[in-house]
Amino acid sequence: MPIAFVLINTETDAMEDVLQSLKDVEDVREAYSVYGVYDIVVEVEADAMEKLKDIVASKIRMIEGVEATTTMIVVQSA
Amino acid sequence: MPIAFVLINTETDAMEDVLQSLKDVEDVREAYSVYGVYDIVVEVEADAMEKLKDIVASKIRMIEGVEATTTMIVVQSA
Amino acid sequence: MPIAFVLINTETDAMEDVLQSLKDVEDVREAYSVYGVYDIVVEVEADAMEKLKDIVASKIRMIEGVEATTTMIVVQSA
Amino acid sequence: MPIAFVLINTETDAMEDVLQSLKDVEDVREAYSVYGVYDIVVEVEADAMEKLKDIVASKIRMIEGVEATTTMIVVQSA
Amino acid sequence: MPIAFVLINTETDAMEDVLQSLKDVEDVREAYSVYGVYDIVVEVEADAMEKLKDIVASKIRMIEGVEATTTMIVVQSA
Amino acid sequence: MPIAFVLINTETDAMEDVLQSLKDVEDVREAYSVYGVYDIVVEVEADAMEKLKDIVASKIRMIEGVEATTTMIVVQSA
Amino acid sequence: MPIAFVLINTETDAMEDVLQSLKDVEDVREAYSVYGVYDIVVEVEADAMEKLKDIVASKIRMIEGVEATTTMIVVQSA
Amino acid sequence: MPIAFVLINTETDAMEDVLQSLKDVEDVREAYSVYGVYDIVVEVEADAMEKLKDIVASKIRMIEGVEATTTMIVVQSA
Repeated sequence: MPIAFVLINTETDAMEDVLQSLKDVEDVREAYSVYGVYDIVVEVEADAMEKLKDIVASKIRMIEGVEATTTMIVVQSA
Repeated sequence: MPIAFVLINTETDAMEDVLQSLKDVEDVREAYSVYGVYDIVVEVEADAMEKLKDIVASKIRMIEGVEATTTMIVVQSA
Repeated sequence: MPIAFVLINTETDAMEDVLQSLKDVEDVREAYSVYGVYDIVVEVEADAMEKLKDIVASKIRMIEGVEATTTMIVVQSA
Repeated sequence: MPIAFVLINTETDAMEDVLQSLKDVEDVREAYSVYGVYDIVVEVEADAMEKLKDIVASKIRMIEGVEATTTMIVVQSA
Repeated sequence: MPIAFVLINTETDAMEDVLQSLKDVEDVREAYSVYGVYDIVVEVEADAMEKLKDIVASKIRMIEGVEATTTMIVVQSA
Repeated sequence: MPIAFVLINTETDAMEDVLQSLKDVEDVREAYSVYGVYDIVVEVEADAMEKLKDIVASKIRMIEGVEATTTMIVVQSA
Repeated sequence: MPIAFVLINTETDAMEDVLQSLKDVEDVREAYSVYGVYDIVVEVEADAMEKLKDIVASKIRMIEGVEATTTMIVVQSA
Repeated sequence: MPIAFVLINTETDAMEDVLQSLKDVEDVREAYSVYGVYDIVVEVEADAMEKLKDIVASKIRMIEGVEATTTMIVVQSA
């Protein structure tokens, strides 16, 4: 099943709210706020590439306070 | 317990080997090769910050073929 | 004829609309939404450098929802 | 069919050679040297995601002189 | 005691104001405006990781005019 | 005399206007719009570091449509 | 006449030598070492795009100690 | 007195050694290894800009294992 990591930058005052909203997004396996260049790391696992696209484009990117996303599609696991 | 995500860039011909080596690193929970700016995403969970530092600095960064690492310490989970 | 690739970042909720708008921009040969640091990749081919400048500066950058562009002028083809 | 754009950085004196080598890589549709942060842009179209992975990981990244690659998987076309 | 460096980008016309506001943030040891990719460098020292998180997330990121922050947690000192 | 290069990113529809405004900024020796990651390159030469700071912070960054600046102070000339 | 700015990263111990070598490259108008993400800024003016390509690809990038270049082609002057 | 922050990337297995070497560099006030995009943060304070240049170019960048540096000159303190 296709997996992706989404690195999120939020508006500076919206990090906590975005993190809470991610809990309710279907197929989100893990979501953490982190120190560094990105504000939040999300791991998504869907049952098809088309589904993955919908979660990122129509769910995660639409959360208020999300400013930019960088999506890394998993090639293979260790 | 402290968690970190480590984004790794490898020498272009070493990605597969680095990924295999990561399987044997203690406290590595997940490791994936990915498409994008980074080559590999690793999730590490240790029982103390000091331990986390050792895994990143003395284990992961020492794997042959690892060229650069960006470590993001988890602040909080969703 | 001068060719350029334009890497586009859109507002997070505008990717689909920007992609549709690009279909109507003259001299756009290909436009794709992509996973990664950039949201959209566009290939433009114009009959002169001056024309290319107009397409990027006066057409593509003016589309609503386009936040930033990185233009790479082609030096030579394989 | 899955499409990807690969942005390549080469050793500074190897750009021309890498570009020539790319001509012989199966499923490479276009390859251009460009001005900017990246040295070469490649468009690849394979008949399956697994095949795409092989071209990028086992062919393009193995060309001598290729220092780093950033692969963007196409989500949808305009 | 945990130390962090926070690299701040401000709205272009707010650098001076943000710098002044940082003077009043508890546990900020040093704050400088700088030339380069970032606008302001801040050094924070708190008595616990949890406290550090609060200063960055609830104080520094909430200052009006702060657009983005990159936080680097100190691993060890020279 | 201290020299600096300022790399500017503008709002996508403001590049031309910002370029025109830069013509009237004192001590600006050259200003060009460019293709790439940055939109405009400016060369500034002032008679003191303090003056240079004022031009960048109080003049260039205050031009409407300027979103971000990266200033590189010249160390030495060839 | 086409103008380009070339941002250069050098091997850490080669900055001075690269700067000296640039003095002898034809059509180099200015070359400065700078503080920041890049080590050297070069301004090149050639009488044709083809010539500009040769200076960057066959002269500047071939100087020993040059590790990476980012070339920005000038669109228009202020 | 001019102050600068130097962000250092080291070879992956040299971070500890570089950090130790920095202790002996004159005018280095603080040096820390950090988690994130950069490996080490250094604060330097010299009695003149010319001196600062020498410390960065002839001392810090010459330490074995230092791969790249980004120097941020302080404009003003809070």
